[in-house]
Amino acid sequence: MASSTVDQSQVARNGLREKVLTLNSMNPRVRRVEYAVRGPIVQRALELEQELRQGVKKPFTEVIRANIGDAQAMGQRPITFLRQVLALCVNPDLLNSPNFPDDAKKRAERILQACGGHSLGAYSISSGIQLIREDVAQYIERRDGGIPADPNNVFLSTGASDAIVTVLKLLVAGEGHTRTGVLIPIPQYPLYSATLAELGAVQVDYYLEEERAWALDVAELHRALCQARDHCCPRALCVINPGNPTGQVQTRECIEDVIRFAFQERLFLLADEVYQDNVYSAGSQFHSFKKVLMEMGPPYAVQQELASFHSTSKGYMGECGFRGGYVEVVNMDPAVQQQMLKLMSVRLCPPVPGQALLDLVVSPPAPTDPSFMQFQAERQAVLAELAAKARLTEQVFSEAPGISCNPVQGAMYSFPRIQLPPRAVQLAQELGLAPDMFFCLCLLEETGICVVPGSGFGQREGTYHFRMTILPPLEKLRLLLEKLTRFHAKFTLEYS
Amino acid sequence: MASSTVDQSQVARNGLREKVLTLNSMNPRVRRVEYAVRGPIVQRALELEQELRQGVKKPFTEVIRANIGDAQAMGQRPITFLRQVLALCVNPDLLNSPNFPDDAKKRAERILQACGGHSLGAYSISSGIQLIREDVAQYIERRDGGIPADPNNVFLSTGASDAIVTVLKLLVAGEGHTRTGVLIPIPQYPLYSATLAELGAVQVDYYLEEERAWALDVAELHRALCQARDHCCPRALCVINPGNPTGQVQTRECIEDVIRFAFQERLFLLADEVYQDNVYSAGSQFHSFKKVLMEMGPPYAVQQELASFHSTSKGYMGECGFRGGYVEVVNMDPAVQQQMLKLMSVRLCPPVPGQALLDLVVSPPAPTDPSFMQFQAERQAVLAELAAKARLTEQVFSEAPGISCNPVQGAMYSFPRIQLPPRAVQLAQELGLAPDMFFCLCLLEETGICVVPGSGFGQREGTYHFRMTILPPLEKLRLLLEKLTRFHAKFTLEYS
Ligand SMILES: Cc1ncc(COP(=O)(O)O)c(C=O)c1O
Ligand SMILES: Cc1ncc(COP(=O)(O)O)c(C=O)c1O
Repeated sequence: MASSTVDQSQVARNGLREKVLTLNSMNPRVRRVEYAVRGPIVQRALELEQELRQGVKKPFTEVIRANIGDAQAMGQRPITFLRQVLALCVNPDLLNSPNFPDDAKKRAERILQACGGHSLGAYSISSGIQLIREDVAQYIERRDGGIPADPNNVFLSTGASDAIVTVLKLLVAGEGHTRTGVLIPIPQYPLYSATLAELGAVQVDYYLEEERAWALDVAELHRALCQARDHCCPRALCVINPGNPTGQVQTRECIEDVIRFAFQERLFLLADEVYQDNVYSAGSQFHSFKKVLMEMGPPYAVQQELASFHSTSKGYMGECGFRGGYVEVVNMDPAVQQQMLKLMSVRLCPPVPGQALLDLVVSPPAPTDPSFMQFQAERQAVLAELAAKARLTEQVFSEAPGISCNPVQGAMYSFPRIQLPPRAVQLAQELGLAPDMFFCLCLLEETGICVVPGSGFGQREGTYHFRMTILPPLEKLRLLLEKLTRFHAKFTLEYS
Repeated sequence: MASSTVDQSQVARNGLREKVLTLNSMNPRVRRVEYAVRGPIVQRALELEQELRQGVKKPFTEVIRANIGDAQAMGQRPITFLRQVLALCVNPDLLNSPNFPDDAKKRAERILQACGGHSLGAYSISSGIQLIREDVAQYIERRDGGIPADPNNVFLSTGASDAIVTVLKLLVAGEGHTRTGVLIPIPQYPLYSATLAELGAVQVDYYLEEERAWALDVAELHRALCQARDHCCPRALCVINPGNPTGQVQTRECIEDVIRFAFQERLFLLADEVYQDNVYSAGSQFHSFKKVLMEMGPPYAVQQELASFHSTSKGYMGECGFRGGYVEVVNMDPAVQQQMLKLMSVRLCPPVPGQALLDLVVSPPAPTDPSFMQFQAERQAVLAELAAKARLTEQVFSEAPGISCNPVQGAMYSFPRIQLPPRAVQLAQELGLAPDMFFCLCLLEETGICVVPGSGFGQREGTYHFRMTILPPLEKLRLLLEKLTRFHAKFTLEYS
């Protein structure tokens, strides 16, 4: 090859020549992606942790990560039964051990029977193990008071994230004015904005009503839709219920209104229901979009297209690391469903341990099973503590001047609104930071508390929030809330 | 709301109205995706299995899936040490059990220490657990004879598939004539063609030389590149070594040529090295692109951009279901690397059990560890059997008239070329099928053997192949190969 001379001259001309892949030459859509939950504030938290380890003096002794809905990272213990069955599946030699309850062994054997080569180490079919899809369908039926669910409409996934991205991917088409628009709530879980940016779809914001505990208002959906129709083709509507970051739980009436709206306006519905087991407020109850849709009868029940997402990451189990999840599709065009399966098959299959875990979550021990009592006790304990932490959060914030916070009806977060003094807003702008980002960074530097600024989720212009999880252990959460409100008072004073 | 009247009239006009999401309105790129390894032939295999279960009479008693590189599904047993440590990680109560070797316990404790909340159930950081990235870097250093690897350049992933898609995603930009082109080998692993279709990048085919045991020829790269420059902007070159579906293992000289070519032509290199532990031929040896690149010295070593992929799915462990994998990037623009991390963070993290498994694969028991002997014995047994099966495959096919097959130097597949009689080709065309698809479907119907037609991987016009794994147990494989060659002879006679 006569190449080396060419190479040398190129190099000589410009020293180290430009890379092939640079910020400028890179996929421009990737550049537009934002993901606040793991953004600069988390970067900084990591650095601070390292500094602490190196003995650097700080006004705090540990960084507290209240930025992400990761229960076990905050000390929540895994549910015994789930881990027993999984260990048996991972290492079937243990099936001979006397140290596992019989029902755990039976469940492990049942799952292994359904795996290729009777092993978690084989790929499954791309939609997930058939037996587990059947168990998921039965779970949905029980949850929805007997309304039928078809296992062929259930697709297992790598966490709910994966399924959400897949369904959004199917929906994106057109160019310019015909480009797909997708309505998402503001504030939202940033997976939505990030995915739409990556896919080049148009993000259409509808604002939740902070004054009504972050309720969804159909008139606002109308407004957003009408405005969007000027510049794109809105084809889908995302709803997060219970809400992240809002903690709101939707009423049945609201869900009916949303379904009517989606039907009338020809919008594919995406219902993110990963917090369906996380409802705390006495007056609140989880209603699945599927159930409400079916109970509304025709034409809705037989025509409205819906995808509902669930996950093993939240609920009482908090098994985020296993990346289990599923989507149930309702009234989807069978040809499109085939295409979805094809798309999923390119990545082969969701992680099989996560599939196994999902199976246990959707069919927990029955009252007659040896593991039932312990399972129930552990489950209740987790949910009761989460409820107590939701109440505590609400209570502390409601008493703090300059902070207002809606009740945490469900999910795992509070999203309090904060007053920021004008000088802080101005200083932030000079630093090129969103004012609430500035607040959160100061909070982190001074207290070690890591929360995510509201600007990462979206908020009405001129309002400021942060999102904080309710996951730290109760007594730690109390200290943290107090520290945080004290810091806010001090910050307000400092910049007034 | 005044909606219900509107709804009714819409429904009345056209009965069940058209879906929002149809084959026509769907993302057109998704429609273009093809994925043969799990395509119609596998669909049919599933149906046949069901028919067999229902007692339908067939000329065979079981369907043999030689279509996918899934060792454990074909009966390969998991490596004991890997599963012991994983079970300990999943259920740490077992750390008190006397039934696990000490080194397995130590390894489990070490991994759990590095997990959030000391649990596999917490999300990890998006690039993967730091300790495991460090272990991967050390593995790469050992593999490459001491050439340094930086853990910050290692990103864990959900199988290698996920990392490959992510890197390709970064590379796609431009429109029309400036659209990113990516050179891929023909025949290829269809993840590449599928992902490029989904991303809307231009697939640029370069043909491997069947006559030289599927070697890569740089002159052919030149040809492909020059032609592609007429209609797109080629920016990346993918190489699969050892090859899927070809079973070819590249020589060091070839790799040097490819690197020189990529450097000279300003192409980002993607080296798919998931079969790096699967080399069987006496004359063949695995050389990593990273090692060769570094040993070539400047300007290559300091400038050529490279991403190298590895997986827990292949090798001696065959742990496909856990979805473990990683990419090491070399000479990547740090700003782009940041963007890659951001992109990964949208999906939160790779499955943590898969990360743990990867850790064990990259740092297996040391000679002084109690588990070493058994681990080595199991590992060697698997690799020796694979080598025997590679030889057997080659031997049987080389004796069959109308079939010619290159040596299976590595990976897990043979890709024999078959003569198809003109009447079969014509009949296939009348049926709207690729001739080799027709052959494979007939084979499946008559023998229960499931292999994938060459058209699913790409092949030179007018040539026909199929891909078959070498994974069935040795004696079964022998029967299968004989059955297959007999079927081909009969098929040839029938359609001559
Ligand atoms: C509203 C919502 N949807 C989806 C997800 C994704 O969760 P996973 O991918 O872990 O299932 C999350 C995670 O926090 C979430 O809050
Ligand atoms: C060449 C090649 N690359 C990548 C993969 C992806 O494997 P995984 O995603 O299971 O790591 C495969 C799987 O068969 C393969 O053959």
